[in-house]
This record gives sequence, C-alpha cells and structure tokens, in this order.
Amino acid sequence: MDHSDWVRKKLQRLSSSLGFIYTPMEEIEHRLARVKARMEKEAIEALLVIQKMNLYYLSGTTQDGLLSVPLERKPLLMIKRELERAKVESPIAECVAFKSIREIPSLIQSHIGKIPNSLGLELDVLPVKDYFKYQELFPKAKLVDASSVLRDTRKIKSSFEIDLMRKAGEIGKKVYLEAKKILKEGMTETEFGGLLEAVAKRYGHEGLLRVRSLNYEAYTWHVLSGLTGGIVSQSDSPMGGLGLSPAFPVGASLKVMRAHEPILVDFGTCFHGYQADETRMFSIEKMKQKFIDAYKACREIHDAVLDGTRPGGDCEAIFVKTLKLAEKLGYKESYLGPPGLQTRFIAHGIGLELNELPFIAQGQSYALEEGMTFAVEPKIVFPGEGSAGIENTVVVTEEGYEILTPVSEEIFQV
Amino acid sequence: MDHSDWVRKKLQRLSSSLGFIYTPMEEIEHRLARVKARMEKEAIEALLVIQKMNLYYLSGTTQDGLLSVPLERKPLLMIKRELERAKVESPIAECVAFKSIREIPSLIQSHIGKIPNSLGLELDVLPVKDYFKYQELFPKAKLVDASSVLRDTRKIKSSFEIDLMRKAGEIGKKVYLEAKKILKEGMTETEFGGLLEAVAKRYGHEGLLRVRSLNYEAYTWHVLSGLTGGIVSQSDSPMGGLGLSPAFPVGASLKVMRAHEPILVDFGTCFHGYQADETRMFSIEKMKQKFIDAYKACREIHDAVLDGTRPGGDCEAIFVKTLKLAEKLGYKESYLGPPGLQTRFIAHGIGLELNELPFIAQGQSYALEEGMTFAVEPKIVFPGEGSAGIENTVVVTEEGYEILTPVSEEIFQV
Repeated sequence: MDHSDWVRKKLQRLSSSLGFIYTPMEEIEHRLARVKARMEKEAIEALLVIQKMNLYYLSGTTQDGLLSVPLERKPLLMIKRELERAKVESPIAECVAFKSIREIPSLIQSHIGKIPNSLGLELDVLPVKDYFKYQELFPKAKLVDASSVLRDTRKIKSSFEIDLMRKAGEIGKKVYLEAKKILKEGMTETEFGGLLEAVAKRYGHEGLLRVRSLNYEAYTWHVLSGLTGGIVSQSDSPMGGLGLSPAFPVGASLKVMRAHEPILVDFGTCFHGYQADETRMFSIEKMKQKFIDAYKACREIHDAVLDGTRPGGDCEAIFVKTLKLAEKLGYKESYLGPPGLQTRFIAHGIGLELNELPFIAQGQSYALEEGMTFAVEPKIVFPGEGSAGIENTVVVTEEGYEILTPVSEEIFQV
Repeated sequence: MDHSDWVRKKLQRLSSSLGFIYTPMEEIEHRLARVKARMEKEAIEALLVIQKMNLYYLSGTTQDGLLSVPLERKPLLMIKRELERAKVESPIAECVAFKSIREIPSLIQSHIGKIPNSLGLELDVLPVKDYFKYQELFPKAKLVDASSVLRDTRKIKSSFEIDLMRKAGEIGKKVYLEAKKILKEGMTETEFGGLLEAVAKRYGHEGLLRVRSLNYEAYTWHVLSGLTGGIVSQSDSPMGGLGLSPAFPVGASLKVMRAHEPILVDFGTCFHGYQADETRMFSIEKMKQKFIDAYKACREIHDAVLDGTRPGGDCEAIFVKTLKLAEKLGYKESYLGPPGLQTRFIAHGIGLELNELPFIAQGQSYALEEGMTFAVEPKIVFPGEGSAGIENTVVVTEEGYEILTPVSEEIFQV
C-alpha cells in the first residue's frame, strides 16, 4: 500500500484505538484568539511558530514544520516531513508541504497576499544561525521577539490542558503505588529510578520531560539517597544529586541505597506533552528522625504555599512567607539548598515545559491567575547527610487550587 | 559540615568509587590545541564556550558555567553554580565563580588583559536573546560564528573518547543479552522499551541521548513492531514509529506486540556523555519471511558500507554505492523509507551528540578520517506492514574500522 494512503486511511483509527487525543479546533481557536490579542498589542503582523512545543500548542501537531499565524487571517501550517500525518494530527484547515526553508516567504506571501512588515519569532530559543537565515529570507520584514506573546498565553491553562495534566498525575500515582513493591535494600539509585520509569512508560508516560533552555535538561530518574541528597549540581535546584559522570552529574547514581537513609524521589510524568511533577520520600526500614522532622517541615511549608494559592495571590509574597516559616521551623540554613547555594524559588510553572510561568520566587511580584499550573517543592538539604522534600503539581482555581498529583503524602517505608 | 568543605574533601572519593572518570589535563590540552589551530585560521581571538557538550569537551565539567578560550593564553573556567564541584571535575587550573552574566566581560578582561576584538560564539545553537545580550556586554568585539571550529574538532575522536564509546557499546551489549529474557507476546512496545532502558540504567546508561538541535529529540525507546515500523514521523529517519500522542509521535507505542511480527529495536546508550547506537531485530516465534529477507539485505548493505570504511573513503560515494546495492537487491522503493519519504543518509556521526560529523549521505562529499565515529543504519520500510534494519556504531581506524557495538547480528527470536 502507498504510505500516504495508509496514513490517510488507517493512522487515525490505529492511534485513536491506542489512546491518542487530538486537540480540537475550538481549543486551537481559543488559543489563537488569545495569541492574536497579544500580537495586536505588540504590533506583530504575523507570527512564525518554529519551536516544537509552541507548534504543538497552536496547531496540535509536532511534525517537522512551521505555523504562520497572521493577525488578519487563519493560520497556515507548513510541513516539511509527513504532511499526511500532520493533517491527521492538526485541525488547522490550511496545510501545505515544503521541501526547503527557502520556500517559506512565498508560501506566506501567497497565503496572506503580502510579506508582513513585522514578523514575530521565538527569540528566546531560536538559534542565531536560523535567525540570520530568516533575516535573509525576509529582508524587508522587521523580525521581532514574540517569546512573551507565547509564554504569557501558555501560562493560563484551559480545562482541556488541565485534564491532560491530571492524566499525567494519574500515571505518577500509579508509579508511586508500585514503587513500594520495587524498592529493596542493596539496589542502586539508578536501578530504582530506571524501574520506576519503566512502570511509568507502561502506563503511557512519554519519557522525555521538556524544558525551555539551551543547557538545562530534565529527566525523571531523580532518586537521591542519603548523602547524594546533599549534593548540589548544575541545575538551579536545591540539590542535584551525584548522577553518573561529569557529563551527567545529576539525579540517580550507582550508589547503593541503605536502610534508614532518606530516599527522595522527584518524579515527573508526561501525557500528551503535559507534565506533572511530584516528590515523595521513601525509606528502607524507619527513616532517621532528622529527616522525618525535615519532611514534616517541608509539608508545613508546602501547605502554607497552598494556603496562599488563589487568584490574586502575589508570587513573591508567598515565597517570602515560606522563608519566614522555614526560619521559624529551624531550617533557615538548610531550606532550598545548603548555605551559599540556596535557590530562590519554591514553585515553578509547569505544562508542556518544566520552566513555564509562574515562578513563586524572589523578585517575581505578580498575581496568580485562575488556570495557572505550578509545581510547589519545598526541600531541606543537609550537606554530607541527605535531604527531604515534598512536591505537588497544582492548578489555581476560582476558589483556590486543585492538586493534580493525588499521591499519599506519607513516607513510603518498606 | 559545610557544603563546599564536603565537596572538596569527599566528592572525588565518592564519585571515583562509583566509577566516575575525569578527563585528564593532557586530553583537554590536546583538544584545546586543535581548537586553537582552527581559531587562528579563522582569526578568532577568543572563544566563549556556552553549550553544555562543548563545555564538557573542553573543560571536563558540565556544571553551570562558561569557558573562555583565548588564543594566546590558558583557558578560564567561569562557574555560576557549584564552583567547588566544577573544580573537582575539571582539570582547568583557572576557575572562578560568578553570579551574573554581566560579570563575564570584566572576568575576561582581567584574565587576558583586554577585551578580544573577535569573540567566537556557538551560533548554531545559541538563542538569539542570548546573542543580543552578548552584543550588549561586548559592544566593541566582533561576535563571530565558532560552530564549525568546535564541530570540526569534535569530529575526530581521541583514544580516550573512543574508549568511553566502547564502554557505552558494552552497556548496549548487556541490554541486548537480557532483552530475550524480557520480550513476551502481549507486551506493548513501550513496556518492552521501558524495561530495556531500566536494564541499561542499571549498567550505568545515562538515560538522556543528546542531539544538537532546537526541535529534534533523541530517546532510547525506539521499539517498533509490525505496522508501527512502517510509520514515518517528524524525525529525518526512515521510520519514526507511532509513539504515544501527537506531542510525542515517535518511538514505542501502546501497540501490543504479536508473534511473527518484525520487532525493530533501535537502542542508544550513553556513558560519560558518549553514545553508542545500535539496531537489532527481534521476533516472537519465527519472523515473517519478507522481513527475514529484508533484514538480510540490510546486513549486506551494512557490510558494504564497512567495506568502504577507511581513511580517505568518500562519504557520498559510499552512500551512492548503497543506493545501487539496495536497488540490485530489489529494495529500491523501500530502502531508507517509504517512497517519497526516503531519507538520504546511511550513517550519522556520533559522540557526545547524535548528529555529529560525518554524515554518509547525499551531498556529503568529503573523506573519512581516522578517529571519526559514526552509526551506520540501513533500514527497509514497508508501509502498513513493518520494517527491518540493522545498526552499528563504528570508529574509522588506520586500517579500516572497529565496531563499537559488539552485539550478535542474528535475529533475536523468543
């Protein structure tokens, strides 16, 4: 059978039977309307969406291609590889194939009847060499930064998106339920982390966690036991762990896990691109009292953040409140990292990427809004000894919040 | 204990006991000498290395920071997070802390006594917004593209690097040896892939495969069975698989694997940042004859590539030879993808990233050199039915080549 024929006739049925959810047109239209309102304010005549997660957000597909979003017309999806599959995945009506990026200006010209005077690009992630190429292709257009147009639109999640995050959270719940059966004394951190990830994949976890950054990488096997929980690394997080080498000095290591150690499992799951992030504590036999106490403090700080979580709550004020609470609880020096290396955020926005808006953090004085989703993660770190922490992913609701990671907050003791 | 103290006194012992290998200074010096020879040719006075894999290559660490490589002086490592850990990991003598990128010009000024007239940046991956920031920070320096300086240096591997790739290949071998015990009829592709990855992690696989690209993502769970092996996706590869959703439409899916289907496992492993990539065929009971035959053809094409693998062999000529051989063997229409979607490469360079030089491909007319490493992967695709393929990672030696993925090339039948 011809491949395109097969895709047209069979792919949708096969993928739907295996649980694929396609973004409906009304959802895309709602997102496009919000993007266009921002474009109008910033005098951007057309947007060229290149980065994969923005493309998915506005078109429903991640096939190799670009989306042109003119202010005054419907969008045009341009696909380099697998047009037929993109047509199955995206509800965008106008969808054309191209072979070389050199064709993009003429495709846009024939779509909207002119070359836009100002063209918005994702300058927060677009590589310089690609930018130079677009300068050459659009010599008369002003290339402007549309990063914040997309970032600000994406920070408020629709009920369609929240539902996908809830499903990611459900995968996480299944992983933690099976984790107690997997954990054994003498196992290495990375063996445990690998098996947890295998469980998550069995339930449909997509394996990759995405983050909007040149150098920062996300991964699910963040399993730290005893002293590796006290090690800081490249990432802007309270503790990075030991990892496996200087090339990957974060997360689980080949250290063997022992009885009584605090075992911190920070596990992210991904469903249809949407992530849920959560942390729980494990131990083999009873955990050392110092870490039971620290975990209790983390839960108290976590609950204080949720107390302040409602539309209108100020992100920086919530963060400052946790600093005071940590101090009151006796953890001033160990809250959010070892002295001198303490991070300055207690929650990060999450959705298609792990570092979305909002940040509940120092210097982030803006209000929470309904539909924002973030992972709140108080952590306490003792160098040379270990760490404790809890994390949940929540959505801001009209009344307050909803937790999207409904896992027991008890210590998982085996 | 103070965290920095702990790192200085204990981290090296802990990490060495768990198998960490640190890049020695003579290795770094050898790499720097080759980089500087290229800088001189391109009149680049200093290089600012930002991207994580280039930083690792030239400094031995991946902690959050940058490396300044002046043509006329020793390099300066500037670290934002975890200076003490960077000092354990990197043999670079001059190593300083910074808090904000605004300090970089004065750190460079005080290191080399001046601001360089021309500053090399990695414009192939550096985001535009960062580039604008460097323009502001270095208003008088000419910012030039140093992508090819680094890319060309990295394409020739040292014996230190080849040894790390060999170790990645050994992890892969262990995975394939255990795979036959794991595969069962009724398992989904993603369950099988997840369990294979758990095995790899147990043996020290780092989990993330890196690729130098804004949108292209690499992953290890590329398990395609029967008809999913005939599906093309976003990646420039013969077949992408079905994947799990429109957000991740590649690799293993929730499709259940059945007897007699061709099951293609394309599995990459990573050790100390260095990757080995390999593909083997599995089946539950006897594989359909059509795919046994196609696999035999793939092996023949694979062997023909290796026959031409020696210093001086022309990459494009080797590729063209495989086109002719595939045609002779009766696979003109299905070689490297379905008709209209056939890719135009038979091997990709591999090392710290999955898309390094060389490419044995259409339009890549240059000679193989000793120390180049690549993954050769002939694949044959039948839409709606499945695919067959083999892949090995090899290094070009003085005499010819060495295979770094020493796994049996038989079909793994359970």
